[in-house]
Amino acid sequence: MLLTRRAEFSASHVCSNPEWSAEENRRVYGNNANPHGHGHNYVVEVTIEGEPNPATGMVFDLRELKDILNQEIVEPMDHRFLNYEVPPFDRVVPTTENIAREVWRRIEGRVDPAGVKLHNVRLYETEDLYVDYRGGE
Amino acid sequence: MLLTRRAEFSASHVCSNPEWSAEENRRVYGNNANPHGHGHNYVVEVTIEGEPNPATGMVFDLRELKDILNQEIVEPMDHRFLNYEVPPFDRVVPTTENIAREVWRRIEGRVDPAGVKLHNVRLYETEDLYVDYRGGE
Amino acid sequence: MLLTRRAEFSASHVCSNPEWSAEENRRVYGNNANPHGHGHNYVVEVTIEGEPNPATGMVFDLRELKDILNQEIVEPMDHRFLNYEVPPFDRVVPTTENIAREVWRRIEGRVDPAGVKLHNVRLYETEDLYVDYRGGE
Amino acid sequence: MLLTRRAEFSASHVCSNPEWSAEENRRVYGNNANPHGHGHNYVVEVTIEGEPNPATGMVFDLRELKDILNQEIVEPMDHRFLNYEVPPFDRVVPTTENIAREVWRRIEGRVDPAGVKLHNVRLYETEDLYVDYRGGE
Amino acid sequence: MLLTRRAEFSASHVCSNPEWSAEENRRVYGNNANPHGHGHNYVVEVTIEGEPNPATGMVFDLRELKDILNQEIVEPMDHRFLNYEVPPFDRVVPTTENIAREVWRRIEGRVDPAGVKLHNVRLYETEDLYVDYRGGE
Amino acid sequence: MLLTRRAEFSASHVCSNPEWSAEENRRVYGNNANPHGHGHNYVVEVTIEGEPNPATGMVFDLRELKDILNQEIVEPMDHRFLNYEVPPFDRVVPTTENIAREVWRRIEGRVDPAGVKLHNVRLYETEDLYVDYRGGE
Repeated sequence: MLLTRRAEFSASHVCSNPEWSAEENRRVYGNNANPHGHGHNYVVEVTIEGEPNPATGMVFDLRELKDILNQEIVEPMDHRFLNYEVPPFDRVVPTTENIAREVWRRIEGRVDPAGVKLHNVRLYETEDLYVDYRGGE
Repeated sequence: MLLTRRAEFSASHVCSNPEWSAEENRRVYGNNANPHGHGHNYVVEVTIEGEPNPATGMVFDLRELKDILNQEIVEPMDHRFLNYEVPPFDRVVPTTENIAREVWRRIEGRVDPAGVKLHNVRLYETEDLYVDYRGGE
Repeated sequence: MLLTRRAEFSASHVCSNPEWSAEENRRVYGNNANPHGHGHNYVVEVTIEGEPNPATGMVFDLRELKDILNQEIVEPMDHRFLNYEVPPFDRVVPTTENIAREVWRRIEGRVDPAGVKLHNVRLYETEDLYVDYRGGE
Repeated sequence: MLLTRRAEFSASHVCSNPEWSAEENRRVYGNNANPHGHGHNYVVEVTIEGEPNPATGMVFDLRELKDILNQEIVEPMDHRFLNYEVPPFDRVVPTTENIAREVWRRIEGRVDPAGVKLHNVRLYETEDLYVDYRGGE
Repeated sequence: MLLTRRAEFSASHVCSNPEWSAEENRRVYGNNANPHGHGHNYVVEVTIEGEPNPATGMVFDLRELKDILNQEIVEPMDHRFLNYEVPPFDRVVPTTENIAREVWRRIEGRVDPAGVKLHNVRLYETEDLYVDYRGGE
Repeated sequence: MLLTRRAEFSASHVCSNPEWSAEENRRVYGNNANPHGHGHNYVVEVTIEGEPNPATGMVFDLRELKDILNQEIVEPMDHRFLNYEVPPFDRVVPTTENIAREVWRRIEGRVDPAGVKLHNVRLYETEDLYVDYRGGE
C-alpha cells in the first residue's frame, strides 16, 4: 500500500555551475541560468510504503506526515531563494532533479525510523515538468 | 499496456475503532474521529493491465469498464454515509486505505473474468492525499 | 480591483425540510435527501473589492484575509456534519446556496470594518457545480 | 461577448518599500519581504470584449492575441526577477495587484487600436490567490 | 444568486467560410481551417440567475439542470463533427464564439420558462482559451 | 531518476476497423465509431529515465526534450484528423492505446541515441481516461 501526500512551496532558484563561464551556463541551462534567478510554485508529492495497521487501518499517521512535510520542506524552502538560503543549494545546482534528491534525503530520515519506507518523491517545477526519485542513484 | 479510468463519488465517513474510547479515537484519528462524520468528493482511478486486442486496438471495452465502475463503486457509495450504509464499513474503519482495498475487491471480481488484470486502485480523499493499492497485502 | 482567496473544507450535509415527509424530501432533493448525509470537499473563493493602498500596493493584508477565512469558515466547518454541528444549519437547509449565504454573512462582518467591501462568495460543491452570491437577495 | 486567453510565466519578486526599514517591510509583507526574493508560476488571463465579426464568427484573431501576450508579458517577464529586470518594478512594488495593473497597461495599448476593448486582467499568484483588474482605479 | 453547472463534450470542427478560398480561410483561421477538421474536449459552464426558493433553499432543481444540459448540449454534440452533424453549424462557422451562442439559444428556451434567467454561458475550447456570452449581441 | 514532460494536442479520430460492417464497428467502438469522427484535447506525458549528469545536475536537456515532443508529436498531430493525415493511422485504428504506441515509437528513436531511456508514455484522451505504455508488448 502506498500513501501520498502533496505540499507546495514558492521559491526562487538559478541554475549555474560556478566553475563555468556565463556563456557556458547559458548554453547548458538556457534562461534557467539568468543570474538574477526566477521562481516557481513547486509541488511536491511524497509517497511512503507500508502495510496498514490492522487496528487503525492506516499506513501512517496523516497529521505526522503533514508535520514532517511542513518541518522539512515547506518551512525551510517556502518564500526562499534556494541558492542563497537553503543548503546544500549554495554548492549544489538546484535543478528539479537535485531538489527532489534533497527532499528525499530530508524525508527519509524522518519516516524510516517510524517503520514505513519512503517510496517515491515527485517534484513538479510546473504543471508540464516533473521528476520522480526513488533513492539510490 | 495499462488503461486507467477515473470516477468520483461524494460520501461521508467517520474513522473510529469501536473497541476504543472517544479519547483514544481522537488521539489516533484526529478530527477524522468526529462521531457525526464528515465528507469528501472521493476520486477513484482504476487501472487494468492487458495487451490490446490486435483487431480492435483496445485493452478493454471502455463502456464496460465505465459500467463496472458505476455498478460497483459510484452507485453503491455516492451520496452515502459509508459507515452506516456501505458494507463492510459497518465493521471495517473506512480509512482511505481500507476504502481502496474494498474498491479493489469489488472491481477485481469483475475485470479478471474478462481476461485482463486489475493492476492498481488509486483513491484520492482530497487533492493532497491519496493511496495506491495493488492487492495482496 | 478585486482580490480573491480560496480555501477548502470537507464536510457532510443532508438536504431535507423537516416539515416535509421523507417522500417529499426525496422528490425535491433527490439523493441529497439521504438522511444519513453524505459529504463534499467544498471549495470557497472569497472576493473583496478595494483600491490598492498607494504605499503598500495591496488591497488587503493577505495574511489577515487567510486568518479570517480560517477562523470563520475552515475551523468551524471542516470535518463537521453541517446540520448537526454548524449553526444555522440545524434549522436552515444546507444547500450550496444557503452555505454561500452563511459564508457571506460570516466574512462580511470581518472585512467591511477593515475598509474593503466583500464582493462575491463562490462556493463549489463539486468541480461541476458552484454558486456565486453577492449579498442582498 | 468576452474572449479570454491564458498564459503562464515563472518569475521572482520581493515585496518591500525602499523607504521603510526591514522590520517595517516584514510587518507589512510578511515572508513576501524576504530580501532574497522568491518566485511563482504566475498565470495570467486576459479578457477582451467585442462583437464577433459576422463573416469570421470571431471577436479577435486568436493567433494575434497569443502573440500579444507573448510579446508583452511572457517574453519580458518569464524567468526574470521582476524587481531587477522588468520596469516599472524597480520602483513599483511587484504585488499581485501592481503586476495586474502593469499587464493591463501593456495589453491595453495593443488590443484597443485593434477595435476591441480590454475587459479584465486576472492574475493568479498561486491557485489560491488571484486579483482581477478592469482599469481606471 | 448565480448557479453554475459544468458539462463536457468531445467534438470535431473546422473553421472555414465557404464563400472564401482555401488560402483566405487559412489566412483567417490558421490551422483551425484544416479541411479535415480537428477536435477538442469542450467544457461548457451554464450559469443561471434566480432567488433561492425559501422552502427548498435552491435556485433551481439540480437534476433538472443536469438533464437540460445533457439533452440540449451533451447528447447532440458529444462525439460529433459539428459542421456535418449539428445544425446550425452546417451554415454557421463553429468558432468558440458561435458555439457559445448556440448553447445560449438552446438552454435559454428551457430555463426561462422555469422561472429563472440564463445569465452566462462559458465555453472552454482548451484550458487556455474560453469565451463568455450573456445574450443579446 | 525519472523526468517527465507534458504536451497537448487537439486532434480528431474515428475508431473503426475497415474490414467490419458499420454495425459491427458501432457494436465494438460505440460512439467512437461515428464515421464523421470527433475530437479531443489529448495530453501526452513522456517519461525518460537516466542518472543526472554530476556536472549539470540534469538527466536531459529540457529544451531538447521540449523540441523532440514538438517535432515528433505536437507539430504532426495538432489540429489534424489522425485517420486521414497522420500515418500509420490510415491503417491502424487510432485508439488511445495505439496512439500511445505510436508516440513511444516516435520518441524512442530520438531519446535513446542521446543516452537516456524512454521509460513511459502516458496519453490522456480525457481527464477521466488514460493509458500508460512502456514498450515491448
